[in-house]
Amino acid sequence: MSKIRIGIVGYGNIGRGVEKAVLAAPDMELRAIFTRRDPATILTAAAPVLTLDDAGTMYDEIDVMLMCGGSATDLVVQGPRFAALFNIVDSYDTHAKIPEYMASIDEAAKYTTAIISAGWDPGLFSMMRVLSSSALPDGESYTFWGRGVSQGHSDAIRHVEGVRDAIQYTVPIDGAVDAVRSGTRPQLQARDKHLRECYVVAEDGSDKQVIAETIKAMPDYFAAYDTSVTFINEETLKSNHSGMPHGGFVIHSGATGDNGHVIEFSLKLDSNPEFTGSVMVSYARAAFRMAAEGLYGAKTVLDVPLAYLSCKDRDTLIKELL
Amino acid sequence: MSKIRIGIVGYGNIGRGVEKAVLAAPDMELRAIFTRRDPATILTAAAPVLTLDDAGTMYDEIDVMLMCGGSATDLVVQGPRFAALFNIVDSYDTHAKIPEYMASIDEAAKYTTAIISAGWDPGLFSMMRVLSSSALPDGESYTFWGRGVSQGHSDAIRHVEGVRDAIQYTVPIDGAVDAVRSGTRPQLQARDKHLRECYVVAEDGSDKQVIAETIKAMPDYFAAYDTSVTFINEETLKSNHSGMPHGGFVIHSGATGDNGHVIEFSLKLDSNPEFTGSVMVSYARAAFRMAAEGLYGAKTVLDVPLAYLSCKDRDTLIKELL
Repeated sequence: MSKIRIGIVGYGNIGRGVEKAVLAAPDMELRAIFTRRDPATILTAAAPVLTLDDAGTMYDEIDVMLMCGGSATDLVVQGPRFAALFNIVDSYDTHAKIPEYMASIDEAAKYTTAIISAGWDPGLFSMMRVLSSSALPDGESYTFWGRGVSQGHSDAIRHVEGVRDAIQYTVPIDGAVDAVRSGTRPQLQARDKHLRECYVVAEDGSDKQVIAETIKAMPDYFAAYDTSVTFINEETLKSNHSGMPHGGFVIHSGATGDNGHVIEFSLKLDSNPEFTGSVMVSYARAAFRMAAEGLYGAKTVLDVPLAYLSCKDRDTLIKELL
Repeated sequence: MSKIRIGIVGYGNIGRGVEKAVLAAPDMELRAIFTRRDPATILTAAAPVLTLDDAGTMYDEIDVMLMCGGSATDLVVQGPRFAALFNIVDSYDTHAKIPEYMASIDEAAKYTTAIISAGWDPGLFSMMRVLSSSALPDGESYTFWGRGVSQGHSDAIRHVEGVRDAIQYTVPIDGAVDAVRSGTRPQLQARDKHLRECYVVAEDGSDKQVIAETIKAMPDYFAAYDTSVTFINEETLKSNHSGMPHGGFVIHSGATGDNGHVIEFSLKLDSNPEFTGSVMVSYARAAFRMAAEGLYGAKTVLDVPLAYLSCKDRDTLIKELL
């Protein structure tokens, strides 16, 4: 059987995670990596590095393009553009704008299969919310994230005056997780579910108290949470906070009459971008198979039968894993 | 929109669980219950109770039949027979014989959709094994069951001479669960993963030591496990052991290169048959929708997109849960 020919668009953390997962997949072949940067500056890639413009003529050389740019500015432009020519998979993660983004992709993907938002949230966590609320409609799903690094919150801190560098961890509150697991279906506000831990390197001579107060008062990002701010030096930031761990829980607490049931799904990830890349690669297999069946248009993880994700065939899965 | 018309075949514990779930579903209607018993002896059902033979003429009155008989003797006969006339869902759970059973159903389901083995194991746990091994191919999935009642093991004990009644709990061993969660990918034998706790009511005058030794030595059921046998009286059995709790874990421990990741799915169920029935009802919705699209034949939970399970439409799911 010939291998699925993969292209990567965007060679940041997720792009490198995808690269690693494709190289480990027995049924895939990494054909090319497309970047906005000067390809000559990228020395370590496992496939030819080309410009975004080079992709335009390669639609019969690549079966699935894995879109690894950021949601805010990259995917909104690149997603529709690539979906018009290629089967694509992305991990678009601006939850509130998914319907709008999906419509733009669906419009472009006339003769291609485009699976969007196929990471872990949106992605695996979304699947668990749908599966568990379908299995137990009298119930409530709770999503907790962390302990893990939030890139958006870290960036927000870096824009505070007097901050040289910073990192923010989202931390689920144990008491809230336990309350949900106990089956009581508590009403939880943002502050009840997560803490925000900030580690900040201050500029010399800046006022740390002012920085801490400014961070804690930031609307949207921190004001609605209990936030801790710890000042550290640059060396500590590098040595203790350069990993990208993440994870979280979807807990569904429900009932059938008087009988309570709890469904829980959790992830504990050493590397958020590598795991996200690995999930995307399994959906690349699905995109390839669905395209072969003429199932075109924008799809989500809710539209893909699980058997399409595995490199084992359906009969083997049924025999070994069902 | 007209409601999905449901029939139940087999009115034991799972049948009653299905009944409860159908009555709670806004988009479904319970049309009839079919039983091998004399319908006149069943006084409390929420729909007309009919004989199995009555079903033959009702193929245009019922959209999906939920097959609630036992796997060993009921489903192997009833499954193909009903799949020839109706869309069906069952929770066939003899893992080793699924391919053979599936072939017999597929042969019968020429113009119907038949979703087999749609409980929690096989069922939700199977989905987790496939999903997690696809997302993290360099990894190992471990399934633990319990703490919960095993009907098969309880029955086996009841056949031992001198035993009046008994119940058996399958209990996952904490140390093994923790070892798997830690990411070490241990090699585990049956004895390392589960304990078997037996609560036995002995006949008057029987030799308890002989009973305990006989149980512990039973091949297949107990010999390969650490088994405890506790003698109790009939009142204690009724008051403390009449529930049907169950649950378990699928833990997938994997890696992307040097980075380890753990995916865990767990169920904590107050009532095994009611939860199983509730899962089957969500797959009845899928069977109805897939049949409407002409997706005939034998299907498993690995073939069904998750969006088909919910009574919410796809756009709503994408907006609210993705």
